[in-house]
Amino acid sequence: MVNGIDRPLDLLNSAKGKEILVQLKSGKQFVGKLLAFDIHINVVLEGTKEVEDGEQRRSYGLTFLRGDTIVFISPSVN
Amino acid sequence: MVNGIDRPLDLLNSAKGKEILVQLKSGKQFVGKLLAFDIHINVVLEGTKEVEDGEQRRSYGLTFLRGDTIVFISPSVN
Amino acid sequence: MVNGIDRPLDLLNSAKGKEILVQLKSGKQFVGKLLAFDIHINVVLEGTKEVEDGEQRRSYGLTFLRGDTIVFISPSVN
Amino acid sequence: MVNGIDRPLDLLNSAKGKEILVQLKSGKQFVGKLLAFDIHINVVLEGTKEVEDGEQRRSYGLTFLRGDTIVFISPSVN
Amino acid sequence: MVNGIDRPLDLLNSAKGKEILVQLKSGKQFVGKLLAFDIHINVVLEGTKEVEDGEQRRSYGLTFLRGDTIVFISPSVN
Amino acid sequence: MVNGIDRPLDLLNSAKGKEILVQLKSGKQFVGKLLAFDIHINVVLEGTKEVEDGEQRRSYGLTFLRGDTIVFISPSVN
Amino acid sequence: MVNGIDRPLDLLNSAKGKEILVQLKSGKQFVGKLLAFDIHINVVLEGTKEVEDGEQRRSYGLTFLRGDTIVFISPSVN
Repeated sequence: MVNGIDRPLDLLNSAKGKEILVQLKSGKQFVGKLLAFDIHINVVLEGTKEVEDGEQRRSYGLTFLRGDTIVFISPSVN
Repeated sequence: MVNGIDRPLDLLNSAKGKEILVQLKSGKQFVGKLLAFDIHINVVLEGTKEVEDGEQRRSYGLTFLRGDTIVFISPSVN
Repeated sequence: MVNGIDRPLDLLNSAKGKEILVQLKSGKQFVGKLLAFDIHINVVLEGTKEVEDGEQRRSYGLTFLRGDTIVFISPSVN
Repeated sequence: MVNGIDRPLDLLNSAKGKEILVQLKSGKQFVGKLLAFDIHINVVLEGTKEVEDGEQRRSYGLTFLRGDTIVFISPSVN
Repeated sequence: MVNGIDRPLDLLNSAKGKEILVQLKSGKQFVGKLLAFDIHINVVLEGTKEVEDGEQRRSYGLTFLRGDTIVFISPSVN
Repeated sequence: MVNGIDRPLDLLNSAKGKEILVQLKSGKQFVGKLLAFDIHINVVLEGTKEVEDGEQRRSYGLTFLRGDTIVFISPSVN
Repeated sequence: MVNGIDRPLDLLNSAKGKEILVQLKSGKQFVGKLLAFDIHINVVLEGTKEVEDGEQRRSYGLTFLRGDTIVFISPSVN
């Protein structure tokens, strides 16, 4: 089930093309399809939506998120 | 549609010459045409406008934005 | 009992596959099974639960936590 | 018009000897003539004036500004 | 008495296996037996106790503390 | 008048032995004679005085100021 | 009198074995005898006392202070 996650970036690699949740240090959350990431944890999302208290607030389409503003990333949005 | 985005910087590269939205850590947003960027995510915008709550507040013309103050960049301003 | 902990990362290595508690700088705590970590202290948790005042608040499943947001990690949740 | 700005630092280079506006993370703004800058975006201004709400507050003459305190720089003060 | 402390890390080395006090930037203090540390000042404590206003608040057992959250470390808890 | 300032550190070099004003991120200002600096913008001042609202608050004599706490340095105190 | 201070660390070197004042970013001040320091400005103090508003609050004995929490260091406590 979680085979193949030896290093943290393996999780991001396995999440490519899937919906992920990104929690920012500012408190905001973004959801979108993960298109790309790098070792700085910079990520590109497609169909990005800003979420607050479980409600969608704003859409940004394609978005480049700087890694140093990210607290956590979860591929399993629920 | 989003072909060619293998690495996060590919999105910025494809946005050169286009209008982008830049969200700063201070909470401010800037829109302008992306002229240049580097690996630190320093960016240069042309026709820069500071936006607050969807309203334009101030114009700065050409602007150099330091990468470490940026939260996200979205080429699809809406 | 604590044999084999010569360097700090040895503790994380010995905690792989076990439940850990992660305290974030934002004040939030997460518990989950440690799947992977790296030298930046980026960690991947399975079955991640956000905890506040000892009560579970939200579940995130698999989660990638950025190391620079972490204050401490304790394998012995109590 | 904006020819020759391939990299962000090109903008600063073209602004040497001209009046620029520097926005600091603390919220303060400085204007002055750009004499020098480096890759850390440390800058030296001549005839530096601290500006608040569009009004000049204090003069500092020659000033060395540390790059990591800078949010943006705009050569086109308006 | 304080022989052999030529470099700051010498103090941490001499404190291995002894009770230390760790002050975090968040304001919290931890006490515990120092098992390991590295050049980033990441430390592992055994029998970790969170202390506030001189009173013990919570126990964490083995704990990995990230160096960049630490203000000071004192081997002589009093 | 400002000949010879090709790089930002040239200004600090030309200010050696002269009175400078140092603005810290904490909001405090220090004045003193610049004795030494390095590429991290760590500086040593002689006859250091802490200034608030233009009034001298406290004297520290020789002082080592860490570069990463500095916002700007101005050799022309006025 | 201040001969031999060509680089900032020269001041710390000349202060070894003497009482120094250390101002932290948190606002706290510590005084103690400087035993050791390194290029990160990590310092070890002996007979460390926390000072607030000129009054001694707490003693810590030997203390390792992380350099990145330090604002300034003054060998001339007054």
